Amino acid sequence: MKSNILARIHTPEDVKALSLAELALLAKELREFIIDVISVKEGHLGSSLGATELTIALHYVFNTPDDLLVWDVGHQAYGHKILTGRKDVFHTNRQKDGISGFPKMSESVYDAFGTGHSSTSISAVLGMAIASKLKGEHHKNHIAVIGDASIVSGMALEGLNHLGVSDVNMLVVLNDNAIGIDPSVGAFKNYLTTIRNGSTTSQSNIFSSLNINYYGPIDGHDLPKLIDVLSELKDKKGVNLLHIITTKGKGLKQAEENQVVYHAPGKFDKITGEIHPVLQKALTPKFQDVFGLTVLELARQNPKIMGITPAMPTGSSLKYMMEKFPERAFDVGIAEQHAVTLSAGLATQGMIVYCNIYSTFMQRAYDQIIHDVALQNLPVIFCLDRAGLVGEDGATHHGVFDLAYLRCIPNMMVFSPLDEIELRNILFTVQTDLHSPIAIRYPRRRGVHINWQKDFQKIPYGKAIELKEGKTIAILSTGFIGQNVIEALQSVANTVSDNFAHYHFGFVKPLDEACLHHIFQQYKSVITVEEGTVKGGFGSAILEFASENKYQIPIDVLGIKDEFISHGTIEELLQECGLSVNALVEYLQKKIPQLVRNLK
Amino acid sequence: MKSNILARIHTPEDVKALSLAELALLAKELREFIIDVISVKEGHLGSSLGATELTIALHYVFNTPDDLLVWDVGHQAYGHKILTGRKDVFHTNRQKDGISGFPKMSESVYDAFGTGHSSTSISAVLGMAIASKLKGEHHKNHIAVIGDASIVSGMALEGLNHLGVSDVNMLVVLNDNAIGIDPSVGAFKNYLTTIRNGSTTSQSNIFSSLNINYYGPIDGHDLPKLIDVLSELKDKKGVNLLHIITTKGKGLKQAEENQVVYHAPGKFDKITGEIHPVLQKALTPKFQDVFGLTVLELARQNPKIMGITPAMPTGSSLKYMMEKFPERAFDVGIAEQHAVTLSAGLATQGMIVYCNIYSTFMQRAYDQIIHDVALQNLPVIFCLDRAGLVGEDGATHHGVFDLAYLRCIPNMMVFSPLDEIELRNILFTVQTDLHSPIAIRYPRRRGVHINWQKDFQKIPYGKAIELKEGKTIAILSTGFIGQNVIEALQSVANTVSDNFAHYHFGFVKPLDEACLHHIFQQYKSVITVEEGTVKGGFGSAILEFASENKYQIPIDVLGIKDEFISHGTIEELLQECGLSVNALVEYLQKKIPQLVRNLK
Repeated sequence: MKSNILARIHTPEDVKALSLAELALLAKELREFIIDVISVKEGHLGSSLGATELTIALHYVFNTPDDLLVWDVGHQAYGHKILTGRKDVFHTNRQKDGISGFPKMSESVYDAFGTGHSSTSISAVLGMAIASKLKGEHHKNHIAVIGDASIVSGMALEGLNHLGVSDVNMLVVLNDNAIGIDPSVGAFKNYLTTIRNGSTTSQSNIFSSLNINYYGPIDGHDLPKLIDVLSELKDKKGVNLLHIITTKGKGLKQAEENQVVYHAPGKFDKITGEIHPVLQKALTPKFQDVFGLTVLELARQNPKIMGITPAMPTGSSLKYMMEKFPERAFDVGIAEQHAVTLSAGLATQGMIVYCNIYSTFMQRAYDQIIHDVALQNLPVIFCLDRAGLVGEDGATHHGVFDLAYLRCIPNMMVFSPLDEIELRNILFTVQTDLHSPIAIRYPRRRGVHINWQKDFQKIPYGKAIELKEGKTIAILSTGFIGQNVIEALQSVANTVSDNFAHYHFGFVKPLDEACLHHIFQQYKSVITVEEGTVKGGFGSAILEFASENKYQIPIDVLGIKDEFISHGTIEELLQECGLSVNALVEYLQKKIPQLVRNLK
Repeated sequence: MKSNILARIHTPEDVKALSLAELALLAKELREFIIDVISVKEGHLGSSLGATELTIALHYVFNTPDDLLVWDVGHQAYGHKILTGRKDVFHTNRQKDGISGFPKMSESVYDAFGTGHSSTSISAVLGMAIASKLKGEHHKNHIAVIGDASIVSGMALEGLNHLGVSDVNMLVVLNDNAIGIDPSVGAFKNYLTTIRNGSTTSQSNIFSSLNINYYGPIDGHDLPKLIDVLSELKDKKGVNLLHIITTKGKGLKQAEENQVVYHAPGKFDKITGEIHPVLQKALTPKFQDVFGLTVLELARQNPKIMGITPAMPTGSSLKYMMEKFPERAFDVGIAEQHAVTLSAGLATQGMIVYCNIYSTFMQRAYDQIIHDVALQNLPVIFCLDRAGLVGEDGATHHGVFDLAYLRCIPNMMVFSPLDEIELRNILFTVQTDLHSPIAIRYPRRRGVHINWQKDFQKIPYGKAIELKEGKTIAILSTGFIGQNVIEALQSVANTVSDNFAHYHFGFVKPLDEACLHHIFQQYKSVITVEEGTVKGGFGSAILEFASENKYQIPIDVLGIKDEFISHGTIEELLQECGLSVNALVEYLQKKIPQLVRNLK
């Protein structure tokens, strides 16, 4: 009979009641449950399979939620969610109005801290541990589970530096599987390998040097051993780190063997692990691949071109260039701050650097953009993938702040292509002639052209494009969301659409002021459309222009309202934000009578 | 005869021509020269005194500017500036139109990278070294000089992690003086102490573990030894780190003994070191002290209050609380990212956390504010000292982006007090009742009240204040710059000033919409004034409100234009930005006739 133990587990209390033999069965069933659901519903797979025994052992040994447990990043927390009361809703994982794919405080008391971006757990849990100490809650345990790829990011190291001089009770579980989303890199990873191989003694290792008691390494799939060691560490005073060795994808052969692919494999056969082929009718390309393949193409011609990614070679598709030009394109690990200033250093020596960082992760390197790049006006090319709404990853990952946080920086150019061909052409343009930093933002989507690998064309800096003429109102859009505007204009009656002109502002900065003067003199009203926050974004830039130039016509600013957007499909979220084709059609249809009323 | 050797030094070539005996004399003269100038012109003292021998040795041994040398932070680079052609203009240090207090690429070819914020040098120099390798410039040396306080910041550690697997030629000089601006903290600092004391072998130390060849520790004031070792390391292949031990303030007794005070002592007697007493006529308080003393006062009453600073206990004045409540207020080192997420962790457990970070350094923790605090709506109190123009520290340190980069974050409140009493009252208010994060920004200045320690008054969230009635135009200011508006209004003729109403918007977010509706219905024109970027700042928020609500009256946005502002006194820079009292007076006087013309 299937899942007969898991069926009895509603809270961690139920886990504690099991025998060791039953716990082993639970591990098996938990894996099967995760595979069952993820094989049809999609989601992150490998991390949770690798953390199954750890999850069970932690909830068996510790008294969550009173003991505070934080999963770094949170990709590995599916088992935790299933054991803490969310088994019956687990099939709604990452769906609109369903549970989040990441730990989330508002979802469960067992989620002591929300995660999504990496390397936050040590700082957060240290804060909790210090609070417990001050409150005299000496019985509490505080546990941060962090992977080997995440622990070398700057903020985790800052946390360790503080942890080593802290008089608290805290346990760090270092879940070492030698991989993040892509394989881990860096000197620290190599160092962990020497520990795994037993060639370094625990007495003299880096953690002990930082005054953190080191335990391990132990096999993270040996459940009795894990329970033993964690029981020993429970209630142990001081600052302890347990190093466990696990295999990402454990329990599904294909996932163990292809760890990068099975990080989030999409739909697959739950028995064989075979990934269901996506219908190979001619698909338009992913923006990320247009980036990756175009940069490779350019790099073949231009030896000064380099590519930098902080831990996203696959996700960014920089892997194509990394394979061909390993000297000139590389992964620096989860180290956005370093990635940006490294790029600045390269640029001082005349290299042409494409520094590819997801929009949401670029938030990690904000100071470096201002202080090391823009202030010195170094022509670094920032490629912000996953800009705009990212869909199922949800609130932690939407790239909606970049227009606002980049636009205020002097010297920065900010460009947002309308389609993948324009992305291709701007990537071409910047390596021919660039004298300032530029941020190129593009979405986590597929483009609109089957044949996108056309001859390169130079894009003039700071120019907007009239896409459609119109009589009364000018719509100014930036980026790929402009496609929705195009579609919406094609979907409304001619009597409606005739009223609207449509302009594409690839450059959010510098603005095409000549074009804007024309627009503000020509039209009765302006609408701006962007896939970013309405506070401080492209629309605000247009408001600033209008105000500066004393234009006083109505301006509607469409974009992401001032709230965090949850998870769901991109289409659902665009609808929620009023940016789907349907929502725009509705908006446009109401607009003309409204304008007539207002002008009366 | 004074400075007879230094007088002959115009470039590092001249240093190379000296004998060892002459080099020793040069060190003496260089120190005297720095002391001479800084004692009357002010500036950073202790760091450069501590790096005198290192500076001479580096320029003696290496071939700058062909060899690339980067000084982390740059406080210690005065000697470098003096030896590289800037001796004759050194008296203009930190003055408007004079040389910068920090290394600056546009100032000299010897400044290979601009610095100011800490911990950037390893990443930048590694970029340069990788570029040299790709260009086949194998003769080049690449040197990063970094202090013990800076090397533990996240981005430097990210850099080391990459450095250890890099096949480049690079030298890191770890200048270990056990102090940043305040004494260094953290487990790594303790670890360095064990190395200094010889109780750790170089074979097993952290750097060697990261595959970086470790040399030292050696006495950084022993010039012949330094030259010996650096000569040996010159052209040495691979990744090397030289650990030198120095004394901050070396050569001036008082500076050695009071390292925190003599980091930047103001004017002092160059012989005795005695600091010239500032005239003690009753001075209004520094905003930083109002913060520090008020938080201490509140902490005495409210045991949940905590204070966190990343390496600025003195600068932020958190030191007052740290002295009285060391368990509840502490310095986490140069670790802004950690500081913010630690604060988030504390807040989850009900602690009331004042996390004090200079506005410019908060750029380092941007992602943590969004992802760890605002997304979870944790009521952390961010105190952004040095907001607005900071004066002599210049472009790297002005806190002018915060309104733009914070305003776009959902859940964030942003407050900017008009004076130090309002700062005191908001600090009081937030600990009584706060359900969202708030950023309180205040300037590097003195307030306007001698008697500021009045009884606490609660400030209602989201309310603006009418400071002055007027007939035609409403001026909306936020923060301390409002004092300049007040003064300007008092300085113009009544016939002019009668036209202007003046409102103080302490809350940039949430805006007082009721008040704004009143303003836009009442007045013919609106002027916004802020000490922050006009792109995306407070003025843009008002433009957004007006647009959303279809108000179509002219709005002038005064603030920092879209360019980096250099160094000078705050008064000079305000004048340059059109925000000084004089500039505002001139602006107001022109405004009325202009408005009359426009309304015609």
